[in-house]
Amino acid sequence: MSNTIGSIFKITSFGESHGEGVGITIDGCPAGIALDSGFIQSELNRRKPGQSRITTQRKEEDSFEFFSGVFEGKSTGAPITILIKNKDQKSKDYTHIKDVYRPSHADFTYQEKYGIRDYRGGGRSSARITAGWVAAGAIAKQALLQLGIECFAYVSQVGDLTLSKSYLELDLKQTESNDVRCPDSDMAQKMFDLIDQVRKDRDTVGGAITGVITGVPVGFGEPLFNKLHAALGHAMLSINAVKGFEFGSGFEGVKMKGSAHNDAFQNDEGVISTETNHSGGIQGGISNGQDIYFNVAFKPVATIMQDQESIDKDGKEAIVSGKGRHDPCVVPRAVPIVEALSASVILDFYLLAQTNKLRG
Amino acid sequence: MSNTIGSIFKITSFGESHGEGVGITIDGCPAGIALDSGFIQSELNRRKPGQSRITTQRKEEDSFEFFSGVFEGKSTGAPITILIKNKDQKSKDYTHIKDVYRPSHADFTYQEKYGIRDYRGGGRSSARITAGWVAAGAIAKQALLQLGIECFAYVSQVGDLTLSKSYLELDLKQTESNDVRCPDSDMAQKMFDLIDQVRKDRDTVGGAITGVITGVPVGFGEPLFNKLHAALGHAMLSINAVKGFEFGSGFEGVKMKGSAHNDAFQNDEGVISTETNHSGGIQGGISNGQDIYFNVAFKPVATIMQDQESIDKDGKEAIVSGKGRHDPCVVPRAVPIVEALSASVILDFYLLAQTNKLRG
Amino acid sequence: MSNTIGSIFKITSFGESHGEGVGITIDGCPAGIALDSGFIQSELNRRKPGQSRITTQRKEEDSFEFFSGVFEGKSTGAPITILIKNKDQKSKDYTHIKDVYRPSHADFTYQEKYGIRDYRGGGRSSARITAGWVAAGAIAKQALLQLGIECFAYVSQVGDLTLSKSYLELDLKQTESNDVRCPDSDMAQKMFDLIDQVRKDRDTVGGAITGVITGVPVGFGEPLFNKLHAALGHAMLSINAVKGFEFGSGFEGVKMKGSAHNDAFQNDEGVISTETNHSGGIQGGISNGQDIYFNVAFKPVATIMQDQESIDKDGKEAIVSGKGRHDPCVVPRAVPIVEALSASVILDFYLLAQTNKLRG
Amino acid sequence: MSNTIGSIFKITSFGESHGEGVGITIDGCPAGIALDSGFIQSELNRRKPGQSRITTQRKEEDSFEFFSGVFEGKSTGAPITILIKNKDQKSKDYTHIKDVYRPSHADFTYQEKYGIRDYRGGGRSSARITAGWVAAGAIAKQALLQLGIECFAYVSQVGDLTLSKSYLELDLKQTESNDVRCPDSDMAQKMFDLIDQVRKDRDTVGGAITGVITGVPVGFGEPLFNKLHAALGHAMLSINAVKGFEFGSGFEGVKMKGSAHNDAFQNDEGVISTETNHSGGIQGGISNGQDIYFNVAFKPVATIMQDQESIDKDGKEAIVSGKGRHDPCVVPRAVPIVEALSASVILDFYLLAQTNKLRG
Repeated sequence: MSNTIGSIFKITSFGESHGEGVGITIDGCPAGIALDSGFIQSELNRRKPGQSRITTQRKEEDSFEFFSGVFEGKSTGAPITILIKNKDQKSKDYTHIKDVYRPSHADFTYQEKYGIRDYRGGGRSSARITAGWVAAGAIAKQALLQLGIECFAYVSQVGDLTLSKSYLELDLKQTESNDVRCPDSDMAQKMFDLIDQVRKDRDTVGGAITGVITGVPVGFGEPLFNKLHAALGHAMLSINAVKGFEFGSGFEGVKMKGSAHNDAFQNDEGVISTETNHSGGIQGGISNGQDIYFNVAFKPVATIMQDQESIDKDGKEAIVSGKGRHDPCVVPRAVPIVEALSASVILDFYLLAQTNKLRG
Repeated sequence: MSNTIGSIFKITSFGESHGEGVGITIDGCPAGIALDSGFIQSELNRRKPGQSRITTQRKEEDSFEFFSGVFEGKSTGAPITILIKNKDQKSKDYTHIKDVYRPSHADFTYQEKYGIRDYRGGGRSSARITAGWVAAGAIAKQALLQLGIECFAYVSQVGDLTLSKSYLELDLKQTESNDVRCPDSDMAQKMFDLIDQVRKDRDTVGGAITGVITGVPVGFGEPLFNKLHAALGHAMLSINAVKGFEFGSGFEGVKMKGSAHNDAFQNDEGVISTETNHSGGIQGGISNGQDIYFNVAFKPVATIMQDQESIDKDGKEAIVSGKGRHDPCVVPRAVPIVEALSASVILDFYLLAQTNKLRG
Repeated sequence: MSNTIGSIFKITSFGESHGEGVGITIDGCPAGIALDSGFIQSELNRRKPGQSRITTQRKEEDSFEFFSGVFEGKSTGAPITILIKNKDQKSKDYTHIKDVYRPSHADFTYQEKYGIRDYRGGGRSSARITAGWVAAGAIAKQALLQLGIECFAYVSQVGDLTLSKSYLELDLKQTESNDVRCPDSDMAQKMFDLIDQVRKDRDTVGGAITGVITGVPVGFGEPLFNKLHAALGHAMLSINAVKGFEFGSGFEGVKMKGSAHNDAFQNDEGVISTETNHSGGIQGGISNGQDIYFNVAFKPVATIMQDQESIDKDGKEAIVSGKGRHDPCVVPRAVPIVEALSASVILDFYLLAQTNKLRG
Repeated sequence: MSNTIGSIFKITSFGESHGEGVGITIDGCPAGIALDSGFIQSELNRRKPGQSRITTQRKEEDSFEFFSGVFEGKSTGAPITILIKNKDQKSKDYTHIKDVYRPSHADFTYQEKYGIRDYRGGGRSSARITAGWVAAGAIAKQALLQLGIECFAYVSQVGDLTLSKSYLELDLKQTESNDVRCPDSDMAQKMFDLIDQVRKDRDTVGGAITGVITGVPVGFGEPLFNKLHAALGHAMLSINAVKGFEFGSGFEGVKMKGSAHNDAFQNDEGVISTETNHSGGIQGGISNGQDIYFNVAFKPVATIMQDQESIDKDGKEAIVSGKGRHDPCVVPRAVPIVEALSASVILDFYLLAQTNKLRG
């Protein structure tokens, strides 16, 4: 496996959904960062199950503890390990999926690859693992705040309901004002109703999240093979259920002419910027000082509350029954995950950018 | 900078468009692979400029030489270095872009990040660098052929002309039958005409490429942070002008319901497959034995044959004039690049998959 | 910081001596290895304090728990996290070293580098951290056993008492028969007496450990910059108090002539071996099938039970008093650490060696 | 294989002794370093064959060329590739070692590991490869000079002739004043005579080199698994023929008592230093501001001008005849190699140290 991401600010994920718990180790966190436990918990709360009618009704508190790397409230430069223990999960009965491969889940591929898998609640392939990522991202956010950098995300699509406004027309502070995490209240209500209907239909639906990063100065990004957008894309494609990533003009940009797509430079009293931002804040893999923005596509959740035909470990036909409490749409709870990985990536590239020149 | 990609089969890129040349070093190529120089050259020819009326009219032969790692026609396990020397480029006059930042190019970001840049023809940020990648990919392809794995790519969109057929409805062997590299001859003609018109308009247009990988067995991919699709996405997002990556159902999958999106398993006389393939051949970050397919979005080429307003190094207003010979649309020549990076990534994951279990 | 070692079998260390505990995450452990908890604990017991009169009299149980990566007693391919919680340590008073730099400790360098340090019991720089390494090594040992590979270590020097016999003349199974961990009982007694006298003198003394690895086939080692002996050396030099590493003929080999030093190949009914083994089982950075052996030099423990002049954080003169319970000589307890890192390195190189050729 | 060393300042080696040439790619060199080609060549000249009667009489000029990464005499942040082409070597006849395994060479292990090897002159395992390292080190030295850091090395032992003076008692500027590269002229003469006698005897002899690094500030080194001395040790153990590495008190320190070994801190008008330096300038894996010094042990060169019994590829008895022109003792020419790797490691750790804290 490969459970580490990042070059300097490296996060290593571990844990299973129904074992002892999930965790994260951050190696390379700069020393001396004051860590606000309340903020970390509030970020975890944004991801935790049971928040509203349109998320899974499972109750997990996702409370975290620092195991290492923090002394008198600050990072010490030593690896920071955070544990988020599982509570009730261990006692549940998962024999019904022990030998059956759930469609579009990772049961089959894990079993074939490793010859063994912790099948309880998805084990290592569960989205519960991302709780550790959110905790790491909360730490990255606190470091970035000192640098004037902020990472936002919001739901911009659910099924065929697409928010037509760009992030510039939205008040991103409204994202948390509704259960969908869409900052446009009218669209949020429509999305809520759609998700709620899908839930009642015992089905699921896909969605998309837009990420926005502000305050990044010129110079983050390591060409050629660690371009800033490639690292962001890699991180986003690591989230469960993600099927696509685009930044700036993205797939729509394909249709444009160069004369319309090019972002003209301008000098506003010494501040160089671009008139448009089809580049999405990144040129040649390096941040250009404009806002960075991108979209992430999530497929519909694979677990549905319906019977599905499948096969078992022996290749025989089997029925997978929809059981338990699952999300009808993953994007409302994925917003903090997108933000967390954005923050981890950006902090990593801030640190890498310190090594481009001698400072002697 | 970060000019290496891969974990075991690692390729390190170097060179500039108008210096001595470009090159690639492959570290970790398995020993004993017979290397067909003719095939490597033919792959380079697919990428080289001057192929047709709709590509740049520059004439570069892109002939390569092995500098190391090959003995009696085979890989030895030692690093393979390939050099592709620049010929005429060095003599040209690039003073007109020495101090001016071309819009939506990497001039500004390189200059700000490093305080110095080789401005001749884009220097390190030139797409010419990808010649080395194609050579490395040609070697990966020869190794993969022994494993029954093939990597295809073709143009599936130019501007607003989108090929509606899926790869399953196409004869991928027809890709090379036309200058656009679209295997549907009718659509290829339309795309050709569009690109040719854009060229006459002294403008550029975007496009998209579809990649297809066949023959990958179950088990390639390293969860969590080196998922197979994340690595493919990272590689594709490393190509100049790429703005987006999606695999399987991609951004369209967002609109679907889980009941329709899930890929049912079936057992056909011992061969386990899925009835549909919205997963794009990858589940939980691991190949599931089905075809892998994905789309890559390319923006319109930034260099247009028109005057554009910009600024210079001192922040003063300046005009960037369209000069030289450039591609009106990048995708026909990017097809071999997509294939080459696909092959490099897949071979890397084949090798990683050898380490999942003891073979004692 | 950089708390990970290994390329495929990667171990990431975390924790502090007087915080919550110490831990280790193993990423890349092959799936399906049966893990014997009793064996892991027995290895930890070999390292734990309070074993005998010549080790520190601190009582720590060093009991471990699996947090992740193990299912039904086997590795699953997921990251294995092991926690070894601190018990009494947290309550102790460490204000006496809070602001004072202990001579030849890491207090000064950590404080200067990071601007903050967890001073309690050495914090991150404590040898207690190696408990996690021993646990990881115990897992590596179990995997290696399936491959017929064993890692041994023993004390070969204490102060100026040097065991003149080579490992071939010793019964390595006798290593655990005495408190010094020297397999020669006469020498062990002399060493014991020396350490005991040093202890009574409130002083400390250095020592050396010899490592022996048997059963390694030809072919482990990745030239040029990941030679097998370089990786072993790197690992050994990561252990607290280590000042040197040599393998095969080592520093003594400097004095030899090539005609005497060269190891002649011989073919004994199809088995190729060397008549002598000055190479220490490694030629050109690659194992040659002979026993691997090496020596590791440990300086005398820096903490002595005497007053020492030093300075404090403000640069003022200060007295460091010898307090607490410390080892008069580190090598008896370091034997399992040398073995553990040996096993981790060798398993990593076994896995890397699976990627040298196609197995299609 | 694994032909890259370093985390930020990464050097990737390629080439063979009798193919097209040898080379090095430096990725991560800080931008804006003025590169003095004359200095790089002079460093290469210190390593090249044919310097004096006591080195091999082969004539190779080892002239280098920049292939990439340098613009107008400065590093640009792009990867710097340096080529050192082979001249006469290609034409030679190496059939006499094609199928025979030279004792204590890498012929056997390479052949067994890879199933193929470039046998000409040792191919990839030849010490000629280190020419590229010396070029990379020359660049690192130029960057370090701006930081006030210098890397020295000299021959401190040949056979049983050991220089008893410490580096503090020597004038390191005298190292280049004689062919042995020992800064003590009396000892240099004795060493010269010994090497010359060994040469006449058609034999070889081992040696040791002492490295000294001055001007390193407090704070270089990344605990736990990238300790500064572990990285130095790893680099030195990567040099052909090296059998051991020790720093500070090294193997002699084993014999000492802690009360004598500890380095007392002192404050001399605001400058904190240690009274003694048994630590070798590194405590807890981090530089403490004192001089860094270490010893490297080299075995006698394996190629001797005598017939030796061995076996061939088929396991049959064969005679290896001493042919060609080889070094009777490797250390005089290895001095610049030790310096080069020292400089590469130190520059890498300077860059890593920029990431320990936020600089917002």
